[in-house]
Amino acid sequence: MAERARRLRSRPAKEPLSLEAFTAAAFGLLEREGMEAVTLRRLAGELQTGPASLYAYVHDVQELHALLLDRALSAVDLHPASTDRPRDRLERICSSYLEVLLRHDGLARLAAGVLPFGENALALTEAVLECLRGMGLSRMRAAWGFDLLMLHVTAIAAEHDRRREQNDPIGRAHRGYVEAEAERFPQVHALNEELFSGTGTARFSWALDVVLTGISEAREPNN
Amino acid sequence: MAERARRLRSRPAKEPLSLEAFTAAAFGLLEREGMEAVTLRRLAGELQTGPASLYAYVHDVQELHALLLDRALSAVDLHPASTDRPRDRLERICSSYLEVLLRHDGLARLAAGVLPFGENALALTEAVLECLRGMGLSRMRAAWGFDLLMLHVTAIAAEHDRRREQNDPIGRAHRGYVEAEAERFPQVHALNEELFSGTGTARFSWALDVVLTGISEAREPNN
Repeated sequence: MAERARRLRSRPAKEPLSLEAFTAAAFGLLEREGMEAVTLRRLAGELQTGPASLYAYVHDVQELHALLLDRALSAVDLHPASTDRPRDRLERICSSYLEVLLRHDGLARLAAGVLPFGENALALTEAVLECLRGMGLSRMRAAWGFDLLMLHVTAIAAEHDRRREQNDPIGRAHRGYVEAEAERFPQVHALNEELFSGTGTARFSWALDVVLTGISEAREPNN
Repeated sequence: MAERARRLRSRPAKEPLSLEAFTAAAFGLLEREGMEAVTLRRLAGELQTGPASLYAYVHDVQELHALLLDRALSAVDLHPASTDRPRDRLERICSSYLEVLLRHDGLARLAAGVLPFGENALALTEAVLECLRGMGLSRMRAAWGFDLLMLHVTAIAAEHDRRREQNDPIGRAHRGYVEAEAERFPQVHALNEELFSGTGTARFSWALDVVLTGISEAREPNN
């Protein structure tokens, strides 16, 4: 009703956009130019209006980011075929979530900064909770576990996203580690090869196993 | 020798700073005004020199951030008293690392974005690896586990750091979850209370237990 009232009030001026059209315009900017281009100023230019009029749709940049993230999350595959085991299903959902976050520069960093709260975020939350409960976990374990799992996958994505635009970030650290004196840093020296081994895919697969095993096997969470 | 040569060349102009004094000036800015104030421009002002002359100390902002982070890490307590069990010691080191990252606005977000590679980062790595190996874990488990553990604690700190400057970030998401339709999102509806329960301290303590249990109990990592 509020939407209809707003439409009526603003006539006969330019027909206001639906929230969906507004979000689509923001997402179009993200797809074409990456997250850095998505500012209220640029968006106003795209929509041929003044930045102030955008506040009909979002209160602040934080809310714009939440809308964008939610829109991006519509691409996560919540119903992967060919598996019925809740844990396998959960791993595929997490892999799809990671892949979606990495589709656009800056999106994963954005995801690390806002809590999304739209339809697609709810659908993702529902699917993950359903898997965790399907694995036989308690209500508390599923709820807190959901939070840790999402934090972890998002952090991995954000780290990867950042490194795409840095100048040889791992190389610099690697040299520092390789040059570490064996006497002062014996473990670093001894484990140098292991520390920098493995593909991103192998690391991610093990990370999922660690977090899911931990959620299942750690002590029961309590307030 | 390079340092001495530089000193000789630049006389009788102003005596150049040592790298330590440069880092101390940057850290002073961070302590007084938070991370946003630490730019090469501001730093040049503090040191009464031109921004270009700072490139004698760092190649880019990324390197400045790595230096700052390493300097901050000197405050992490790597030798907590009153415990000899490697796992207890590791939990205390992680808590101290979290606390240090949260001392200054923006520091935790910075830590999520750079790999530090100085003396203090090496000392932290050494201490964590020593604990993991002391827990009886294999070389690969200790190496990859170190990476996951640091990623996780850093992500928790960065999330907390960001929320300090957002407008009621959890409240917004909470309302979205509370209003979720029970028919479409039955798990979200059923676990609403659990999803938003628990203090930050209780959540962090459980998160550490989850990651450390997972590192110990998950399958052996492989490349």
